[in-house]
Amino acid sequence: MATSSKRRFARRMTSVHKSFIREILKVTEKPDVISFAGGLPNPGMFATEAFAKAAERVLSRDGAITLQYSTTEGFAPLRRWIADRYRTHKGVEVDPDLILITTGSQQCLDLAAKALVDAGDTVILERPGYLGSIQAFSLFEPRFVQVEMDDEGVLLGPLKKALSGDRVRVFNAVTNFQNPSGLTYSLERRKRAAELVNDSEAVLLEDDPYGELRFEGDTLPPMASFCRDKAILLGSFSKIAAPGFRLGWMVAPPDIYEKAVIAKQAADLHTSTLTQRALFEYLTTNDLDAHVARIKRGYKRQRDCMLEAIQQYFPERVDYTRPEGGMFIWVRLPDGLSALDLLEKAVDYKVAFVPGAPFYADGGGQSTLRLNFSNSSEEQIQEGVKRLGACLEHCVKKAC
Amino acid sequence: MATSSKRRFARRMTSVHKSFIREILKVTEKPDVISFAGGLPNPGMFATEAFAKAAERVLSRDGAITLQYSTTEGFAPLRRWIADRYRTHKGVEVDPDLILITTGSQQCLDLAAKALVDAGDTVILERPGYLGSIQAFSLFEPRFVQVEMDDEGVLLGPLKKALSGDRVRVFNAVTNFQNPSGLTYSLERRKRAAELVNDSEAVLLEDDPYGELRFEGDTLPPMASFCRDKAILLGSFSKIAAPGFRLGWMVAPPDIYEKAVIAKQAADLHTSTLTQRALFEYLTTNDLDAHVARIKRGYKRQRDCMLEAIQQYFPERVDYTRPEGGMFIWVRLPDGLSALDLLEKAVDYKVAFVPGAPFYADGGGQSTLRLNFSNSSEEQIQEGVKRLGACLEHCVKKAC
Repeated sequence: MATSSKRRFARRMTSVHKSFIREILKVTEKPDVISFAGGLPNPGMFATEAFAKAAERVLSRDGAITLQYSTTEGFAPLRRWIADRYRTHKGVEVDPDLILITTGSQQCLDLAAKALVDAGDTVILERPGYLGSIQAFSLFEPRFVQVEMDDEGVLLGPLKKALSGDRVRVFNAVTNFQNPSGLTYSLERRKRAAELVNDSEAVLLEDDPYGELRFEGDTLPPMASFCRDKAILLGSFSKIAAPGFRLGWMVAPPDIYEKAVIAKQAADLHTSTLTQRALFEYLTTNDLDAHVARIKRGYKRQRDCMLEAIQQYFPERVDYTRPEGGMFIWVRLPDGLSALDLLEKAVDYKVAFVPGAPFYADGGGQSTLRLNFSNSSEEQIQEGVKRLGACLEHCVKKAC
Repeated sequence: MATSSKRRFARRMTSVHKSFIREILKVTEKPDVISFAGGLPNPGMFATEAFAKAAERVLSRDGAITLQYSTTEGFAPLRRWIADRYRTHKGVEVDPDLILITTGSQQCLDLAAKALVDAGDTVILERPGYLGSIQAFSLFEPRFVQVEMDDEGVLLGPLKKALSGDRVRVFNAVTNFQNPSGLTYSLERRKRAAELVNDSEAVLLEDDPYGELRFEGDTLPPMASFCRDKAILLGSFSKIAAPGFRLGWMVAPPDIYEKAVIAKQAADLHTSTLTQRALFEYLTTNDLDAHVARIKRGYKRQRDCMLEAIQQYFPERVDYTRPEGGMFIWVRLPDGLSALDLLEKAVDYKVAFVPGAPFYADGGGQSTLRLNFSNSSEEQIQEGVKRLGACLEHCVKKAC
């Protein structure tokens, strides 16, 4: 269109692009392709009947309130439920008045960026980092610094150096079964990294969507619990209940909480009254612990199946993580092998994954890729990894 | 807290404050106060049983899809439903592929601001303007210019002057039964204002949450229909179905649409799958036209009741609008009388309203106030206006 090409957009829009992953997903949606590309929970685990009853019940019983506008902060009983669960499941005391219900935990990233980041400020991410964070923060034109991880979490030396930089506002960490790497911070690493944050000007923004999905090892306290008033802690119902509700939350110190509420009012007034009340009804009339245990058993089987298939079918020179929970395995190809080239070839083999490059805001990561195991059957995992292994063998020999 | 006071927030947070109206609502929530302060639809009109059935049905029938992540653009059948309704009810052709489902139409304001407004850019609003717009745009640090209105809409001379200013990006208009003034643009004013937009660098951002709630006169085409690819048109299910769903939409030219989708991905990934599918189920198994007709009959009675009571009880020197639809009447007090002072006194008289000052981004409006008629019974309206009239008489005599 003639005039469109002349349209002037805000400067922040020049640096952001459509989600690369969502574009890939469109390509790989053919029914005969086995896709490890998405990041979807297993819909077979959804408590659909229980949710049908819960939604019907709140609307029949409290329809006028359930369909009306409600407070920006969120449904008070749901906020108390979240605080209770922190106490019973993580041993952490949280003030329900400092919990803000959000439209998915993704919204927390937008609100935190709005509250804390001016153009040119520094935001520290893990390397590789969560793509949703890169997208949300990009719109506020920060300088990204990404810090490498090992099996115990972010590397302390590089983190210390990054935190001592200029105008460092936020350190965004996903401490349990990180997306995309599957890595988890050890207790010691949490404490040491928290000390570095406490000594800096930055705020810790700890995201924890997968924390309850631990298949082995001990539940660890959030890094935020070692940061006192220097931390924002995010949570989500997407992986333990249902992503279609778009329900997450933020726990923040009072001064940040107040700014986040202002930003949320401006963003969408409040999160759906219906979804909040229906979820609360579900939570208080069902056994969530039993439900989460069922998810964990299923996902553990899927992870084990994928790890075994990788060991069987992948060439020896391919490295990968062994996550203690969550939904993802991270693969490092031999240097020089491009995951993007591999994906092009993999489509011929009827298998798909996400190339790792988008998780690197600074470029790099060309030889990495992410595999999701939660949304495929064991048969699909075995067959898909076998196909990917064959494709890899081909590419390693021919250098694609 | 010691460290909190030293915290550095983003510059954009310095100019915004908590919603003044929401703070007022907290004060006026005492049960013996008759409040015309809120902007709530009448919950007695909500189709609670039909929604209970619709939610139960989609979850029982399509639970796995209804609880899963879904596309950023929104549920395709719902987008087609919206396009159909534009055709049948407004005579406007809209491409469903250019409809973006949002978490309430409030989110559209955030997305449009993100896509179009850099710090220092000019945003034109009506005077008085919608508070949600002022809040959403404020976070992107624009220069606001507000343009006065008369009974036919925004004044063309001042609009032309404003549009010819420097770095004018957006003209945000609420063309039907505006919040807060209750004013509606005439057909002629829509066309003439649209011409001015077409000759400018600005994008029209037309908000229309109340358009279907017309009690008298003819339905008019949106101003956007005279702007071709220079307009974004917003809509909402909050006033015709239920605000608790948080469901609105944006119709935008292709290039703006693409940016809005990117911004929405970063903001909350997508709007709740459950609310979209439950609403669509309701829309396709119930008679929305009959439901809207019922709302209009009720609100018209409430408006008539309030206008009659105002005529009976208010002092002669008080001026007010006679809206053809919507939910609000706008009151102009004799010069020198402060609506904020009046509110303080009104609490003694057990009646509440919203002072007009927050609707003026440039200051001013001290002698104006907004009355909501949709959320009070006729008895409450008569008694509340009587109380407010007595309070006004008192203040006019004593100059409060």
